Amino acid sequence: MMKKAVIILSGGLDSTTCMGIAAESGYALYPLTFDYGQRHRIELLNAQKVADYYHVGQRLKLITLPFLRDFGGSALTDNQIDVPRMDTVQDSSDSKIWLEDHQDIPVTYVPGRNLLFLSIATSYAESIEAEAIYIGVNALDYSGYPDCRPDFIDKVNQVIMLATKVGAQGGSIRIETPLIHMTKADIIQEGLRLEVPYAITTSCYNGGEQACGECDSCVLRLRGFAEAGSVDPIIYS
Amino acid sequence: MMKKAVIILSGGLDSTTCMGIAAESGYALYPLTFDYGQRHRIELLNAQKVADYYHVGQRLKLITLPFLRDFGGSALTDNQIDVPRMDTVQDSSDSKIWLEDHQDIPVTYVPGRNLLFLSIATSYAESIEAEAIYIGVNALDYSGYPDCRPDFIDKVNQVIMLATKVGAQGGSIRIETPLIHMTKADIIQEGLRLEVPYAITTSCYNGGEQACGECDSCVLRLRGFAEAGSVDPIIYS
Repeated sequence: MMKKAVIILSGGLDSTTCMGIAAESGYALYPLTFDYGQRHRIELLNAQKVADYYHVGQRLKLITLPFLRDFGGSALTDNQIDVPRMDTVQDSSDSKIWLEDHQDIPVTYVPGRNLLFLSIATSYAESIEAEAIYIGVNALDYSGYPDCRPDFIDKVNQVIMLATKVGAQGGSIRIETPLIHMTKADIIQEGLRLEVPYAITTSCYNGGEQACGECDSCVLRLRGFAEAGSVDPIIYS
Repeated sequence: MMKKAVIILSGGLDSTTCMGIAAESGYALYPLTFDYGQRHRIELLNAQKVADYYHVGQRLKLITLPFLRDFGGSALTDNQIDVPRMDTVQDSSDSKIWLEDHQDIPVTYVPGRNLLFLSIATSYAESIEAEAIYIGVNALDYSGYPDCRPDFIDKVNQVIMLATKVGAQGGSIRIETPLIHMTKADIIQEGLRLEVPYAITTSCYNGGEQACGECDSCVLRLRGFAEAGSVDPIIYS
């Protein structure tokens, strides 16, 4: 039997690259996508397209978390808070400074989101006897989220060993973060090598039919393609 | 403003005792109850009654997690797996042995459940600026679940500091487990002192109108009342 991996798939650039990396590593892919009331709902359609591309469209699980919107507290789930334009983009070398100076967390931070996603992925992985969970977090070219840091991932790996039956019985479920130390350009170069279908992904926080090109996520993506010496195949408004 | 605590409230004996303890500690109570497709659905009604008793009925949040049943793998969510009768009840002194010998995890274990509950509670606590999360886990008189151990809770506390904006900015959300080292009899004595409404709680895994008196949970509860020198006010079939 093929070894199994749960992939947290948003239909964005990073998580779709994780699909390609996990597939190359020989895993049977079990994608999991989350509807948490995010503005960028086009993600959900893209996740389905990406799963179809990897021939696991039937297997894609959509997990609905309406309570995150109800809890509020983030520009990604609350229409009362504007998604900021990224007028002053830091370059990659700045982001390490942030790790010591945590004051500047963006309004697009969703309280506890990645811990919640990883917890659900852990329940699913344990139920289907998967040995890995792929998540496309990135500590270098990221936007300042605390729950994208390597320390956070290391600690969740320790929690999983204690939280689960499989951990208590000497097995493991391991979080894989192949992108964590890569720049956006590195990720895109790796994805292009793996023929990741970037044309059917989107990264825009505003979630329109066409990407806005102005939010943090669009700016990082466009800069990544430029630095990778390639052209982003999606259309910007 | 009163300090706030999120209480993970099942409507069972332990979580209801946590309501009493948190109230005595001066917290405004924000109860959170989970519908994860468990058999013992009467829990949900009891949680409402308990919240009403503490005058926070309007504030009770019911979080629906249909995917846990979909994932399967537990007697509590899968009708194909029988809930066992507790024919050979270990006494409290046995349970420490289990901590080194983890092979014997019951079929009522729900994969990753407490990690998931605590993750959701963390999102909620961060959104409402609560400083504590109460969960009625118990390491002594428990039934062998890995995610009730003190080590697990300690590690989740560390994760929360890394996962959240409040943690990254020098604040904290702390998991409080006032029952973790208490016997069931200790818990009940403390609850009786605090006038916890045990008559409207239930602990039975089988979830009938009347408690079965035979599952792990019923047996532990009945023994607890006996050891506390009291009588359980609920009706057994």
